[in-house]
Amino acid sequence: MTDTSSTQWWQTPVVSAPNHALASAVQHEINFKTKPRGALGRLEELALKMALIQDDMRPTCTHPTLIVFAADHGLATEGVSAYPQEVTAQMVANFLAGGAAINVFARQHDVALKIVNAGVAHDIPGTKQPLDHAIGRGTANALNAAAMTNAEMSQALETGASIAAAVHANGSNTIAFGEMGIGNTSSAALLMHFLTDSPLDVCIGRGTGLDDPDFAHKREILERVTERAAPLLPAAPDARALAALREVGGFEIAMMAGAIVGAASHRMVIVVDGFIATAAVLVAQALETHVRNYCVYSHCSDEYGHAEMLHWLDVQPLLSLDMRLGEGTGAALAVPLLRSATLFLDEMASFTSAGVSDKADG
Amino acid sequence: MTDTSSTQWWQTPVVSAPNHALASAVQHEINFKTKPRGALGRLEELALKMALIQDDMRPTCTHPTLIVFAADHGLATEGVSAYPQEVTAQMVANFLAGGAAINVFARQHDVALKIVNAGVAHDIPGTKQPLDHAIGRGTANALNAAAMTNAEMSQALETGASIAAAVHANGSNTIAFGEMGIGNTSSAALLMHFLTDSPLDVCIGRGTGLDDPDFAHKREILERVTERAAPLLPAAPDARALAALREVGGFEIAMMAGAIVGAASHRMVIVVDGFIATAAVLVAQALETHVRNYCVYSHCSDEYGHAEMLHWLDVQPLLSLDMRLGEGTGAALAVPLLRSATLFLDEMASFTSAGVSDKADG
Repeated sequence: MTDTSSTQWWQTPVVSAPNHALASAVQHEINFKTKPRGALGRLEELALKMALIQDDMRPTCTHPTLIVFAADHGLATEGVSAYPQEVTAQMVANFLAGGAAINVFARQHDVALKIVNAGVAHDIPGTKQPLDHAIGRGTANALNAAAMTNAEMSQALETGASIAAAVHANGSNTIAFGEMGIGNTSSAALLMHFLTDSPLDVCIGRGTGLDDPDFAHKREILERVTERAAPLLPAAPDARALAALREVGGFEIAMMAGAIVGAASHRMVIVVDGFIATAAVLVAQALETHVRNYCVYSHCSDEYGHAEMLHWLDVQPLLSLDMRLGEGTGAALAVPLLRSATLFLDEMASFTSAGVSDKADG
Repeated sequence: MTDTSSTQWWQTPVVSAPNHALASAVQHEINFKTKPRGALGRLEELALKMALIQDDMRPTCTHPTLIVFAADHGLATEGVSAYPQEVTAQMVANFLAGGAAINVFARQHDVALKIVNAGVAHDIPGTKQPLDHAIGRGTANALNAAAMTNAEMSQALETGASIAAAVHANGSNTIAFGEMGIGNTSSAALLMHFLTDSPLDVCIGRGTGLDDPDFAHKREILERVTERAAPLLPAAPDARALAALREVGGFEIAMMAGAIVGAASHRMVIVVDGFIATAAVLVAQALETHVRNYCVYSHCSDEYGHAEMLHWLDVQPLLSLDMRLGEGTGAALAVPLLRSATLFLDEMASFTSAGVSDKADG
């Protein structure tokens, strides 16, 4: 590979715009359901959005699938997390055994769950193993060097897109992503800083629960990473996103970004989880601008930077439950609301069919 | 009935405090699930609350049941709603035919649905009829006189409590309430004004969608009702709540208030819907203060006064979807979150059982 321009290594799937031509017909149906105009609030917006994505007057939430990407971060050796790095592998084993929060919520809502090793540093305990798409055994320490090479990044993006394509081919039209990776709030905070121009202090949070001294230490480490990496980033949004991903990203975030673009290229509804997943959207959206039209934001995380990240994207999440667990837990909890949106559109009577008097000014 | 003290007519069921002695044991279990402390946010609070209500380390959401109380308001003849009064009866028929939003969401979440005629003014179209507990054919016009007599109010409260008791006897430990009644945002706004001392302008909203002139008219009518009724209200909270209910309430609100007290007396989890349902809680809580410990607030309605009402109660709703439909729709959409709270507590692995390293400062 003689070409060092990272944007040319991965053939980004093309994402087309949703079918806005359907909007007025769908809105008319929504308006004449037996309820006051707009009375179902955000569910009405959601039904419309899903209809345009699926190019169908009767959108569905068919075989929703949630992929958890797990990987480790070289930066974790600098003490930016409250938990030791081994926890990534241990939690993957917990996912495979069915004992984590995401297992509980995925079971509850009949969401198919797939666990992907995107680059975990330690062996996964036990005999059950995740889908192996590991790019390496953790990224390099971003304090000293790029977290990954261009080749590793390209492979992660490509793998993510392939996984999304396979889920789509399997009959799913709705996809969600979760992550596990000790240290990955640091990676997401740095991506946020580089891709939204938010000051670093707005981007850094306590992750899994740092106390004050450890939080100050995390801030200092991320400041130093910023000093190293910032000069290396070009200005053009797509090239900048890829360079930032290479310098400070994680394998799970890169794979998720690729999966998001891939899912959007297949006109899937993408249910976005919390802080880390939204950072992956920042990358994906910089690569293909129409990605934004396929994303539904499930919740506002309690991780400090997430509210500002959502504000920057100019989007409103469905839930706000002060959660900060990752794994895709917020996304799984939002799936019933997606179903509610499709169901009211499909099943509710209209004023005419129910013999209910409409408002005089209807 | 020679005794005119309204508080003595209805024998208010006794509501005891939840079992706070269980709190530390439940909190310990929550803390040692495989997640950072507090990472499930509001779901953790919800699990704890349900455990204390049910006096059980493993709370459940068993046979959740939603009762829709429908009734009409004499005040509707003053033009305080965007829809004609006939719509109450027509929507009851729509509920019975399964075509309303609440039918869709109750089916989705396996919530048993019961429709109660608490006092609808018009005949219900069609052969299917609701459970008949009608106190009358709509209340009197509160502009000129008390909306209901003390006897009617007592009967409505008593009936509500009996309905809740029957649902409990049928094996349900979780109950939710919805309402249908053209004009009932006026009734709820007046109750809010009288029971929270919020200025009338904070309490009045656009209901099902009043335009500016009609909204101004609604405000003027409610101002006049206030002038008539305010001097009749005693200061003591319980007597004041009953007098306000009699003067400006509705049969559906009175029946719901009775049902709330009844459900709390049976240690049921009460899922509170929007503006009207929360007004019923204001009454119920004034009668039995421990009612507050049994209420879970499902959503913040888009109806103007609801956010302030929740603020006054010092409670946070689970959802905020800009909905303003009533019928119990917000409550039905929150039921899966109650289930999630019980499921994570029951099914998640602990750090020890999963072999996951806990935080050093654990």
